[in-house]
Amino acid sequence: MSPLTRFSVQPLSAMTRKLADVASGRSDPDLVIAGARVLSTYSERILDGREIWLSGGRIAAVKSAGTYKGGGAKIYDAKGGIVAPGLVDPHIHIESSMVTACAYAEAALLNGTTTIFCDSHEIGNVMDVAGVEAMLEDARQAPLSIFLTVPSTVPATSALLETAGGDLTAEKIGALFDKWPEAVALGEKMDFVQVATGDERSHAILAAALRRGRPVSGHVYGREFVSAYAASGVTDTHEAIDREIADDMLEAGIWLFLRGGPPTTPWHSLPQAIRTITELGASHKRIAVCTDDRDADDLLLFGLDWVVREAIKAGMTPEQAWAMGSLHGATRFGMDGEIGGLGGARRADLVLLDDAFKPVSTWYGGELVVEDRKITPLLDQALSSRYRYPEAAYHTVKLPKQIRLTPELPAGTVVAHAIRTELPGITLGHETITLEPANDWRSHFDRHGLCFVTVVERHGKSAGNVAHGLLSNFTLKHGAVASSVGHDSHNIIIAGVDESDMQVALRAIEDKQGGVCVVVDGKVRAMVELPIAGLLSDKRVTEVAEEVKALKREWEAAGCSIPYMGFNLIPLSVIPEIRITDKGLVLVPEMEIVPLFEAA
Amino acid sequence: MSPLTRFSVQPLSAMTRKLADVASGRSDPDLVIAGARVLSTYSERILDGREIWLSGGRIAAVKSAGTYKGGGAKIYDAKGGIVAPGLVDPHIHIESSMVTACAYAEAALLNGTTTIFCDSHEIGNVMDVAGVEAMLEDARQAPLSIFLTVPSTVPATSALLETAGGDLTAEKIGALFDKWPEAVALGEKMDFVQVATGDERSHAILAAALRRGRPVSGHVYGREFVSAYAASGVTDTHEAIDREIADDMLEAGIWLFLRGGPPTTPWHSLPQAIRTITELGASHKRIAVCTDDRDADDLLLFGLDWVVREAIKAGMTPEQAWAMGSLHGATRFGMDGEIGGLGGARRADLVLLDDAFKPVSTWYGGELVVEDRKITPLLDQALSSRYRYPEAAYHTVKLPKQIRLTPELPAGTVVAHAIRTELPGITLGHETITLEPANDWRSHFDRHGLCFVTVVERHGKSAGNVAHGLLSNFTLKHGAVASSVGHDSHNIIIAGVDESDMQVALRAIEDKQGGVCVVVDGKVRAMVELPIAGLLSDKRVTEVAEEVKALKREWEAAGCSIPYMGFNLIPLSVIPEIRITDKGLVLVPEMEIVPLFEAA
Repeated sequence: MSPLTRFSVQPLSAMTRKLADVASGRSDPDLVIAGARVLSTYSERILDGREIWLSGGRIAAVKSAGTYKGGGAKIYDAKGGIVAPGLVDPHIHIESSMVTACAYAEAALLNGTTTIFCDSHEIGNVMDVAGVEAMLEDARQAPLSIFLTVPSTVPATSALLETAGGDLTAEKIGALFDKWPEAVALGEKMDFVQVATGDERSHAILAAALRRGRPVSGHVYGREFVSAYAASGVTDTHEAIDREIADDMLEAGIWLFLRGGPPTTPWHSLPQAIRTITELGASHKRIAVCTDDRDADDLLLFGLDWVVREAIKAGMTPEQAWAMGSLHGATRFGMDGEIGGLGGARRADLVLLDDAFKPVSTWYGGELVVEDRKITPLLDQALSSRYRYPEAAYHTVKLPKQIRLTPELPAGTVVAHAIRTELPGITLGHETITLEPANDWRSHFDRHGLCFVTVVERHGKSAGNVAHGLLSNFTLKHGAVASSVGHDSHNIIIAGVDESDMQVALRAIEDKQGGVCVVVDGKVRAMVELPIAGLLSDKRVTEVAEEVKALKREWEAAGCSIPYMGFNLIPLSVIPEIRITDKGLVLVPEMEIVPLFEAA
Repeated sequence: MSPLTRFSVQPLSAMTRKLADVASGRSDPDLVIAGARVLSTYSERILDGREIWLSGGRIAAVKSAGTYKGGGAKIYDAKGGIVAPGLVDPHIHIESSMVTACAYAEAALLNGTTTIFCDSHEIGNVMDVAGVEAMLEDARQAPLSIFLTVPSTVPATSALLETAGGDLTAEKIGALFDKWPEAVALGEKMDFVQVATGDERSHAILAAALRRGRPVSGHVYGREFVSAYAASGVTDTHEAIDREIADDMLEAGIWLFLRGGPPTTPWHSLPQAIRTITELGASHKRIAVCTDDRDADDLLLFGLDWVVREAIKAGMTPEQAWAMGSLHGATRFGMDGEIGGLGGARRADLVLLDDAFKPVSTWYGGELVVEDRKITPLLDQALSSRYRYPEAAYHTVKLPKQIRLTPELPAGTVVAHAIRTELPGITLGHETITLEPANDWRSHFDRHGLCFVTVVERHGKSAGNVAHGLLSNFTLKHGAVASSVGHDSHNIIIAGVDESDMQVALRAIEDKQGGVCVVVDGKVRAMVELPIAGLLSDKRVTEVAEEVKALKREWEAAGCSIPYMGFNLIPLSVIPEIRITDKGLVLVPEMEIVPLFEAA
């Protein structure tokens, strides 16, 4: 195990006497961070001339500068910089970064984030409880404070519409709560239509959390669903996409997590939703910021610190915005006594900021882990001994020997139900295209701007389910692209213009037991290997970021019209209008399967 | 049991489907409160044109006025009034009101308060765990939501300085937490000097709470103690007496409960402490308001609603002030999903306000309990079947047959350590008076402005401990006054000018097994009978309020310079400079006992 984890700091119950001694001046602190300005998330002010006394990985006290007269403590000169509490990300999916929890810590700490609340929804979809528990073990060994919101909607729809590896029932979820104290909430309840319409399984899962005093996190689109969703006990969401729904949610008693994402993605809803404060005059006290999803590459550039600065750009004061990035998330989860501010007894999770509110140095549990924007040898060492997932996690891509990846060329005229990709890549259009007889698929593709899209069941749960479809406007020029990250069931999704490159892509993923790749002329041109559950790399985040960069270059070179993260969503059968799963083409929201071809 | 208790509303986990049905319009609400403005404690705005849909005692949804088109729901026309969440009092002692929890509910609901966090410190001092548990049972049967902060400092000092009926160790406190889910926090840790100096028993009690994830409530005076106190894990206080200490506490991560009390009392620290917001620019988001102590009489006039209005007077907006009176306390105790706002799924604890923010009507768990400032028949019925305390609670005044209540007249010249009462009646002065030989006590009294003060141990735990003292400046003209509420050990305190009236007062209290009385010329002129633990009446709050009014009249007529609540504090051996317990005269903060007389 890493020498530096959440458990390196003793529980407060074992430390109060020591901390009282230090705060009273009877014992020396371990470390005094001197000459600091302090960003108070409690009062939302910056206080000049302070020093922070640390002991045993906690804050013993914040005192006026010059109070410590010397003795056994080490002194760290903040040189007038701003010291703020470490950021608290109230909603993220580690799997989106395609790294383990241990590896994720590196990027988080570089960004001044010291606590995250993660929803291990993806690995739950692949490996059921075993996957969730493996990630919890991973989280325990990470040099970062990681709490879990237990995946609530696995599978995303039902076994009628897709084959998932996981099936998290109310009973299994209850057992996770009872076993793992860091399972602090129910994760985003994605099936908001079922929640609003009173579905029995959905509400049994809600009850499993509420009965145990665990709050429920949400995921809802559409103002018409907000009141029923709140009535069902959901008390946070991160999906407010505009001012009006943000305002509705706030008034329904829902904590708002404003999501910031790279400005090129559709996830950057913060600038719209924050207008409930800046234009409609709502208090910001129940509003936090979050990242939700980041790939390894973006994670290093667009961390939660960046989201906080976006909130400042949108009109919040820096003190308010930093509170939205730390204290408010902590308060939502009942942890404001432990994290989120520089109060006495809190964990010494601190960030030294420059005047642009960019993290310069980070202390995690009192240990300097980032200094001058670089990780310290202590953190480097901690990151070099990462948790190893159980062997079963490395064997989750189970494929038949022979699989036909492309449909038969129709003999006569047919109407095809095609999936039209559109930027930004979330919703997909339902296009019906009349295909006159042709000599080969290439003729159809050229004429209609199509390519193949295929989903292959990979959990070993079916008799080799394969579904064939057609993608419109994807603009893939040659070869194939494929991914074992196919939300939310994470079957393998492949797009291509010919069977042979698609086969190479599929077998490359089988060979590595997971990955995202680009294949051209029979050769793998770029691949992010994801051997853990077909979702995660076992490398460090900086290595994975490099792999992702290379993948993005080849992805673009292949001509794909939407980025790979959007591509991964093509099987996600809860977003309109049409998706493809291993069971076939799914019409959303009708929740019906349609054949690829119908008689013209 | 009363037909209307906290448990009349089912837990949310059992109600989500029903509430989703109602919020979605598939089922009728039970009640629609129509034509309302809504005070949002979430956004801190007043929203025009709303209606509130209630179902099963909870809020299903707040909708735009006119959304409900009729059907099975009852309609209550709010006639444009403001509907706000019921108030949440984060720190009170029921015993100060000298009524049971069931009876307290009446006054609370009239004041728009629907939830209280009470610290049953006084009954714990008399009856130990049995007293705390009896009050918990009482609370469960009350038509009010009552949560407990477990008494943390019983006895207030130690068996060396006073004889208490209770001794709440860390083990007993831990067991209370484990047994009673409504024991949500550790009550005010009054021995702040011991906490700051690392006392073992004090910190074991803190650990018993923190280890179980229960937050710790505080009680601290003196800026020099704040940092050590926060370092010990205390996360709220209600004792900020001025702007500076309020600011210190806030920055140390402590939630502030601003205490308002009748303006004639020293408890009204809100106008000073609130200046951390109004003058020093601190955010109010971690600041609530509370009442702490109220006698039955004041309770009806100076409830939490009055404190909220005082906050408005001091410069807060009404929306902010009401949030400080409801949501903020709920959030501090992790209950903002259940109370404190008009969000979906919350308990339907509501108040209809006039434009001066005075409560007109109150709904508790969806039931109308106060209408047009009067209790409804439903509440009247609920209040008529109050919890009956166990028989042992009615037998807590255990006295020897013969007790000498006055000291021997000194034969020669002596120096007496007298206790000087001062308005407002909290701190007491230490006066040394040279008594020349005299024929009788009356001569000393006339010359020096003195009277007797005597404390008699009443828990049956000593060999009849009696301590004699002299009170200076109390200005009692004749007769005697006495009380079985003698903080915090609640031995019997008697002041008088002659032995015989003091004996009558003592035996009146013994006869009723508790009370506060005024005796003149051998006759009881006024008495509030307190047969339960010597602390509580078993009558309704309105009756007790009348008794208290009558007592106050006689108290004043007898000439007493400080009110009876201040008198009750004379044995409280933690407030400077000198107090009297059953063990004798205690010098504070030396924590030493001195004899009444010393050689001149």
